[in-house]
Amino acid sequence: MPRTTAELRTPAYVVRRSTLERNAAAMRERASKLGCALRPHVKTTKTLEGAALLTGGTMRRITVSTVAEAEFYAAGGFDDILLAVPLTPDKVGAVVQLAGRLDTFHVMLDSLGGLEAMRPELDAAAPAAPLSVVLMIDCGYGRDGADPADPDVLSLARSLAAGPHTHLGGVYTHAGHSYDTGGDADALAAVAAQERDAAMTAAARLRDAGLVVPFVSIGSTPTCSRPPANLDGVDEMHAGNYAYYDTMQVRLGSCSVGEIAVRVLTRVVGHYPKRGKMLVDLGWTGVSAQGEHAGFGSFVDEPSLRMVQLKQEMGEVGPAEGCATIDYARYPIGAILAFAPYHACAATQQHAALHVLDDDGTTVLDTWRICKGW
Amino acid sequence: MPRTTAELRTPAYVVRRSTLERNAAAMRERASKLGCALRPHVKTTKTLEGAALLTGGTMRRITVSTVAEAEFYAAGGFDDILLAVPLTPDKVGAVVQLAGRLDTFHVMLDSLGGLEAMRPELDAAAPAAPLSVVLMIDCGYGRDGADPADPDVLSLARSLAAGPHTHLGGVYTHAGHSYDTGGDADALAAVAAQERDAAMTAAARLRDAGLVVPFVSIGSTPTCSRPPANLDGVDEMHAGNYAYYDTMQVRLGSCSVGEIAVRVLTRVVGHYPKRGKMLVDLGWTGVSAQGEHAGFGSFVDEPSLRMVQLKQEMGEVGPAEGCATIDYARYPIGAILAFAPYHACAATQQHAALHVLDDDGTTVLDTWRICKGW
Repeated sequence: MPRTTAELRTPAYVVRRSTLERNAAAMRERASKLGCALRPHVKTTKTLEGAALLTGGTMRRITVSTVAEAEFYAAGGFDDILLAVPLTPDKVGAVVQLAGRLDTFHVMLDSLGGLEAMRPELDAAAPAAPLSVVLMIDCGYGRDGADPADPDVLSLARSLAAGPHTHLGGVYTHAGHSYDTGGDADALAAVAAQERDAAMTAAARLRDAGLVVPFVSIGSTPTCSRPPANLDGVDEMHAGNYAYYDTMQVRLGSCSVGEIAVRVLTRVVGHYPKRGKMLVDLGWTGVSAQGEHAGFGSFVDEPSLRMVQLKQEMGEVGPAEGCATIDYARYPIGAILAFAPYHACAATQQHAALHVLDDDGTTVLDTWRICKGW
Repeated sequence: MPRTTAELRTPAYVVRRSTLERNAAAMRERASKLGCALRPHVKTTKTLEGAALLTGGTMRRITVSTVAEAEFYAAGGFDDILLAVPLTPDKVGAVVQLAGRLDTFHVMLDSLGGLEAMRPELDAAAPAAPLSVVLMIDCGYGRDGADPADPDVLSLARSLAAGPHTHLGGVYTHAGHSYDTGGDADALAAVAAQERDAAMTAAARLRDAGLVVPFVSIGSTPTCSRPPANLDGVDEMHAGNYAYYDTMQVRLGSCSVGEIAVRVLTRVVGHYPKRGKMLVDLGWTGVSAQGEHAGFGSFVDEPSLRMVQLKQEMGEVGPAEGCATIDYARYPIGAILAFAPYHACAATQQHAALHVLDDDGTTVLDTWRICKGW
C-alpha cells in the first residue's frame, strides 16, 4: 500500500478525506433542514468507503445506476438500494436475486411498455415478495421518465400496484436539465421548483386515485446544492456528484473550488519551451476528454497553468490566459501536479482505485477500490 | 463464460475475430511489401490475444504507452517491447526491472533535460546491461519528440551512447498530425512523407556523427494505412488503432466501415415517441464521450438511427438525418443494438473485457482481458 503520493504511479486518482467528509455532512444537513432524507447517488463515489461516509455511516438508502453497482454495494453491506434507470427484461433475473438478499431494493420504470416487455421474465423469476418498482417522472429534463400529465402514468402505477410480482415503490424524478443552467441562479431555482412540483403533482395524482405512494424522491447535484426553501411533501433528495464536486459544478454555482475533493495527480514528462508548453503523464485515459471547452478541468493550485490538450496518455500544458510563458524551473521533470477534473463522475470511471489523502496533500491514508463494469 | 451475445450484460465490448485477423494481416502485408518490420502499438488492443494476432503469433516487437501495459504484455510472454512515451525518473525502477526480465526492452527520451533528470535513479537502479533508449523525434506533430535540427539532439544521442547505464536504441517518430488531415489524401501523403523524412534525416545526422542507430521506426494508423510508396531506410512501422479501426478512421480515409472490428453492444431501454427518441443502456461510461460532432460513432447496421447524446449510463437515440421518425416496432425494449465507436482506443479504455464474436455476430468464441491502469 502506498504511504505517500510520491509512491503513486501517475496518473493517480486521489481524494482529500476532510473535503469529502465536509461535502457529505453539508448535504446531509441541507436535506435534514428541509425535512428530507438523503439518498446519495453513489455512481460518482463508486467506493464502499466513500458511500459509507455519504450515508453518515448507516450504509442505508443509496441510489445506483448499474446492476454492477447494486451488486457491489450489496456485497459491501449496503441496503435500501434504488437502481435508478428504467429496468429492462435482461436485468430482471439479477434484480430479483438482489431483492431477495436485501431488506429493501427498488427498481424503476417509466412506461407501461417497459412493464409489459418484462412480464415473461418477471413470471419466470417469480420473486418471493413483490418487487418495489418506483415510477420515474420526467420534470422537464426530457431524457427518461414519464410525462406526469400522461394518462398512461396512472395505468402504469395501477398495474404496478396490482402485482402480483410488483408493487408501487414511490415516485422519482431527476432534474438533469439543471446542468443546462450555466450558473444562472434564477434559472436553477426555476428548475429546482419544477423538479419538486413535477414529482409532487405526479404523487398527488396517484394518491387521488387511491394508490399508496411510499415516497417521493427528487434531486440532482445542482438543485440539491442550492435547493428551494421548501420541499414540503418530498421524502428524500438524491444527488451524487456533490461527494467530489468538480470544475463543472463550480461553473454551475453548486460549489466553490475549495469544495472539489478529488484530483488526478500527474507528473511532468518534458519541457518544450519552443512550443510554449510542457507535457504531463495525464491523458484522456486518466481524466476523460470531457470539458474541452473548459480546459478539461483545472490545475487549481497552479493558476498559471492550463491544460491545452489531452492525448491518450499525455496532456499538453500551456501558460494560463494572461501568462506569457510557463515557469519551467518551477516544474522540473518528474514533479507532481494536481489536476481537478471538469467532470468527477467521468474521472472516477477511468480509475480502478482512489487514494485517500490527509490534509497535507501527500500522505496516503487509504486506498479504496472503485466499482467497475455493468 | 458467455456463449452468445444474449448472455452479455450491456454495454458490452465485442470484436469480430475475422475482421481483426484481416486488419492484422493487411498491415503486416503492407509493412512487408515496403521492406519494414511491423511493431504493433498494442495500446488499442490492450489484450494479450489481440496483440498476439497483430504480431502474427511471434509475440515479439510491440509498442506500448504505459508501464502497466509493458508489465502486462511481458507477463503474458511478449518480448521486444518499446515503451513509447518519454521516460521520467519515477518509472526508472520499473523499467530497469522489466529490462532485466526481457531479451529486449526499449524506453524513450526526447531531451537532454529528461536524461539528466533521471541520472540519480539510473545510478541507483544500476541496470545489469545498458538500457536501450530510443530517441524520439518530432516530425511536425508538435507534441513530444526532439526537433531533428536541434543541436541538442546530437548531444542527447551521444550521451545515451556514452552510457554507462544507457545505449542509443534507435530513432522513433509518430505523425500524430495525420489525424488532422480530415480525409484529404494529399494532405495525408504529405504528412506520411514528412514522418519518414524527419526520422531518416535524424538517423542520418546521428550516423554521420559516427553513432550506431540500430533502427528507425515510424508510424501512425492513418500514415501506415496509406503509406508512401517508398520507405527505404525505415526499419519498422508502428501503429495501433488499425487493429480495431473506428468511425474516425473511416472519416480519415484509413479504412472502410466493413473494416471496423469492434462494437459496443447495447440494449433498448425505452421508447419516447413524443420526444422523438429512444434510450439505450450505453452512456459515455461504455464508449467515451469522444466524437460528439460525429455522433460518438455509428449504428453501422442500422443506418436509420443516430446517437444524439450520451449521458453517464444512457444514450439518447434519434432518427438519422433524412429519417422522419424511429421505427419503434423494429427495436423492442431489450433488443440488442451494435454501436461502432468513434474512437476505438477510447472505447477500449472503458471496458475490462472484450468478447470475441464469430461471423454470425452472436456466438461468443472467447473473452479477452483488457489491460487496465498505469
